[in-house]
Amino acid sequence: MKKMLPIPIQTARLQDLFLAPRVALNHQVTLPSCLEHCRKTGRLDAFLLNWRPGQPNKPHIYWDSDVAKVVEGMAWDLMLFPDAERACELDQLAQRIVSAQQPDGYLNTWFTVVEPQNRWQKLYLNHELYCAGHLMEAATAHFQATGKRFFLEAMCRNAECLSRTFGRKAGQLRGYPGHPEIERALCKLAESANRPDFFELASFFIEERGQSPNYFCQEIEREGGHCDPEYFANLLAHKPLRQQSKATGHAVRAMYLYSAMAELAEKQQDKELMTVCEKLWDSVTLQNMYVTGGIGSSEFGEQFTKDYHLPNAAAYAESCAAIGLMMFASRMLNISGNAGYAEILERVLFNAASSGYGLDGKTFFYANLLEVDQNMFTKRKNITAERQPWFNTSCCPTNFCRILPQLACFLFSQLPDGMAIHIPVAASIDLPLPGRRLKLQISSEYPYQGDIEIRVLEDCPQTVLALRIPAWAPKFAIRLNGDACPDTLDNGYLIVQRDWRKGDFLQLQLAMPVECLQAHPKVTENAGRIALRRGPLVYALESIDNGEDLCQILISPKTEFKLEQAHGLPQGTLAIAGTAFREHFTPESSDQLYAARKSFLRKFRFTAIPYALWQNRGPASMRVWIRAMTEPGILSP
Amino acid sequence: MKKMLPIPIQTARLQDLFLAPRVALNHQVTLPSCLEHCRKTGRLDAFLLNWRPGQPNKPHIYWDSDVAKVVEGMAWDLMLFPDAERACELDQLAQRIVSAQQPDGYLNTWFTVVEPQNRWQKLYLNHELYCAGHLMEAATAHFQATGKRFFLEAMCRNAECLSRTFGRKAGQLRGYPGHPEIERALCKLAESANRPDFFELASFFIEERGQSPNYFCQEIEREGGHCDPEYFANLLAHKPLRQQSKATGHAVRAMYLYSAMAELAEKQQDKELMTVCEKLWDSVTLQNMYVTGGIGSSEFGEQFTKDYHLPNAAAYAESCAAIGLMMFASRMLNISGNAGYAEILERVLFNAASSGYGLDGKTFFYANLLEVDQNMFTKRKNITAERQPWFNTSCCPTNFCRILPQLACFLFSQLPDGMAIHIPVAASIDLPLPGRRLKLQISSEYPYQGDIEIRVLEDCPQTVLALRIPAWAPKFAIRLNGDACPDTLDNGYLIVQRDWRKGDFLQLQLAMPVECLQAHPKVTENAGRIALRRGPLVYALESIDNGEDLCQILISPKTEFKLEQAHGLPQGTLAIAGTAFREHFTPESSDQLYAARKSFLRKFRFTAIPYALWQNRGPASMRVWIRAMTEPGILSP
Repeated sequence: MKKMLPIPIQTARLQDLFLAPRVALNHQVTLPSCLEHCRKTGRLDAFLLNWRPGQPNKPHIYWDSDVAKVVEGMAWDLMLFPDAERACELDQLAQRIVSAQQPDGYLNTWFTVVEPQNRWQKLYLNHELYCAGHLMEAATAHFQATGKRFFLEAMCRNAECLSRTFGRKAGQLRGYPGHPEIERALCKLAESANRPDFFELASFFIEERGQSPNYFCQEIEREGGHCDPEYFANLLAHKPLRQQSKATGHAVRAMYLYSAMAELAEKQQDKELMTVCEKLWDSVTLQNMYVTGGIGSSEFGEQFTKDYHLPNAAAYAESCAAIGLMMFASRMLNISGNAGYAEILERVLFNAASSGYGLDGKTFFYANLLEVDQNMFTKRKNITAERQPWFNTSCCPTNFCRILPQLACFLFSQLPDGMAIHIPVAASIDLPLPGRRLKLQISSEYPYQGDIEIRVLEDCPQTVLALRIPAWAPKFAIRLNGDACPDTLDNGYLIVQRDWRKGDFLQLQLAMPVECLQAHPKVTENAGRIALRRGPLVYALESIDNGEDLCQILISPKTEFKLEQAHGLPQGTLAIAGTAFREHFTPESSDQLYAARKSFLRKFRFTAIPYALWQNRGPASMRVWIRAMTEPGILSP
Repeated sequence: MKKMLPIPIQTARLQDLFLAPRVALNHQVTLPSCLEHCRKTGRLDAFLLNWRPGQPNKPHIYWDSDVAKVVEGMAWDLMLFPDAERACELDQLAQRIVSAQQPDGYLNTWFTVVEPQNRWQKLYLNHELYCAGHLMEAATAHFQATGKRFFLEAMCRNAECLSRTFGRKAGQLRGYPGHPEIERALCKLAESANRPDFFELASFFIEERGQSPNYFCQEIEREGGHCDPEYFANLLAHKPLRQQSKATGHAVRAMYLYSAMAELAEKQQDKELMTVCEKLWDSVTLQNMYVTGGIGSSEFGEQFTKDYHLPNAAAYAESCAAIGLMMFASRMLNISGNAGYAEILERVLFNAASSGYGLDGKTFFYANLLEVDQNMFTKRKNITAERQPWFNTSCCPTNFCRILPQLACFLFSQLPDGMAIHIPVAASIDLPLPGRRLKLQISSEYPYQGDIEIRVLEDCPQTVLALRIPAWAPKFAIRLNGDACPDTLDNGYLIVQRDWRKGDFLQLQLAMPVECLQAHPKVTENAGRIALRRGPLVYALESIDNGEDLCQILISPKTEFKLEQAHGLPQGTLAIAGTAFREHFTPESSDQLYAARKSFLRKFRFTAIPYALWQNRGPASMRVWIRAMTEPGILSP
């Protein structure tokens, strides 16, 4: 299929049961709440540059990024919900940020106020370029939302400062960030400000990374230390990116970097770099991803581990890593037009990423476990059994602030001559195309139901509608104005091209049965277990519906599954119910820790809810991978 | 039963297939090897007190304890294997240690050479009293082995220094150690040197611990910090020990402390303190112990977590904690004469503790996992999939050095009028009793076989033999000189009292079937799984015998188990074999990470080896808890 572009975010207004309420909640609750946290913790005041040693609220090296993400979110949000007061608040915040800029364009509160002597000294450790990147993203969003240029121009001066500092000329540093982000941001800034030179700087950071001699090792050596480049595998800086083919290191950093690599590969028509991206994509999604789309199994270094090492209770699966995978998937999808990327994007969006965001809009998971027994749970740093309002490292809450208002860009793409619908949630669309407007009303109860109607609201000649047929749908049907529809299938998309007339309507039916998924046999912990999925939603057992001891529940793949309104969850939320079995033990062995016990199974009615919605009805135990009651055939040897 | 005492270690000479080779290997390999590590790393030279900043081999706060444990082991070992050269080496080491003692009796290399200004300043953090304790234990062993008093007396002066420093009088510190050990050591020193005042100091450390105001909090506050006593739960100092009833905190520290508490409770006939010990024992063994006897589930703080939280691949189960539990069990056993303590002692000894010690005598596990998939394993600090020759914190190797020569004391106890045989491994016994000697030859292939013959080698009038009947034995039989034996059963022991004549023989038959154990239903990870146990030995599947993907293996409790010589393991090591099933998947879904797969079971012959012996034939995957192939009955609701 032809190359796609993200749609401008204000061209689609979401109206569905799952995503639209989150976008609204972000506006009403999350943005004000995160802004208040930034205020309370001193993150906003840090830009006044008046903190002095001994005062409370000592700035932190990554504080600027939190403020930047809230400001970015406020800007995107303003495009969806225009509001004069919010617009004024946004401008004031942008002005405060800009006020902290130094005469040479440098802008970072930590290295201006706390450690001025250490500017650019420990790139491997500090979040200096990461913060700059988030401020650039905030500036481009502010510009797009308001048309005002002062923040954008300030960040262009900041990028110019970086361009003078980093490069291959004499006197320049051949360094790159410990935490990638600047690469994506420079691409956005280049686009928004029409500054192709910033693409070059992004490309420099990508190409220099992991080259020999290793820049980070040189930083360590400058301090009298010694280290092996392999030490920087967590930062994906142990070898040049073009030589990397396996998901490695810190999952968020990997995703931000891979997204930028894909963008640059496309921009520069660099087939070699695109092949690297494809290999890395396969490694992430075919060997290192939870069924929920979560990535980064290990809390140690928040990183990828070994292929197929996907523990459930000991998962990490950071919310930011899920958001990063959505970005990488969306980028690859738009470049390739291949529905395989949308398949993963959808999986992450409705499961691992949404899990991080509470239905109250003000509590968040940092780590998204796939199994929690609340009676045995020990909270540890960012790993909690209940969503939290804030974290010391609060990247996840603020990432939701900015990603939620942009969701439409992940669902729909602009084609040169039409539009692609990757994820057909209910929405009204008003997309300008050359010489015409594409105005659509999409009606559906997606992701809970597979019946979708797309109604054309205005004549729109010679325009393509590309409808993704999800790989999870065992069958589908399409009708145009109630009749057979002439179409072609391309890369997982049904292509319908015609002179659309006002009142035309497409009806797409996607079969959405409950599936019992098994993991790859190498995923040790899931042997003998199944996960329930229906459409894009992965389901989980929660103790609130099923009692504690979820480990004693067995479900047969032959169960007759029923759908019903989930108790205590938003109207329209479908639970899966049916007959399951619970293993009981005879009482005589009850208090011994280990014994030859007798057990029997008793039928009971189970209820599974969408994974992303667990722990929204109070503290609970939860389990995605459920013991399978199977009667596999026995083959003679 | 009447109160027991540990037998003097030289009164029993082990001759069995399991333990005796380890005792010999410790003599031949482990002690020289650990001594060499101490030499190479600078631990021995540290006692010369001539290290200066900038030099290599900077001492560490717990170095003294490693040397102490090796020296203690050498002393006990000398009692089993007299050797003039070794005796000389031992004396030289003892002299070197003593040479580092300060005029006031203080003895610690770190706080003499590296941080002299910080003596007694950070008890919560440093191992100052822990090192002193191990040196005292070494000194008592040295005295018992050689009869020479110089080391013992030096450590008495050290204990006097502590007695002046710590106490409730004005000017004294009301502190106690961050890492318990001194309490046990002071009891031993008190006994060996006949210094009852050292019992009082031990009692002081026990009673002060966790009292309010919290001493460790005061230390923190002195440094300008602030903390809650709950912070010191890991050190078991969050509340007074008499108010503790749940296994809490660092497992090794807990065991050392509980052992000392039991000793003092007995010494002082303190029933309240003994009740505390019993409650803590129950908490450890009924809710917080692996089937192998391992304890301390979490690498974070090396500690107990929540009841029934016993993850397998994510286990910790430190070797030192297992050794500590043996000490606690042995102490409780001798005090109570109750076979229940021997049951656990035996479980720990043959499984969790022995697992830490490689059959080469020079490699060790620090953490003893119950499940390892070598393809997914990521080494982390002390958590390794292969035994290591040494660790930065090398407490475990040196703990084996000293515990192995003492093993006989854990197997047999002296009664006022005879002997108790807790664990009937083959051994020759020559135990002095008032006015007579008990000379026995115990013949058995225990722990591999349950047939035991005890032959009396000399007339021994009016003497009791107490034979433990293990709880794991579903039946037993005993005969005296081939005939029915008059006996009574007391606290899990068969009591046979008579005028023993040379040539008398007892034949004890313990039924030793293969058992399929299930864990308590609350142990989440073991739901639907079984562990194989036979007699005292827990078995494990190793990939060397069964191929990789151990998670795909199912075993039915109805299997007809066979016993056979284990391939590649010492002669006499019995493996369990039988027909198991392996789950196979149809190839069409092979490369997908998640799919609705088809599987079938194929029979194959499995082999399980004793858990303690895994990873002695090269790198391997291993699994204790095996998927159960059960057909539990289904009850109608």
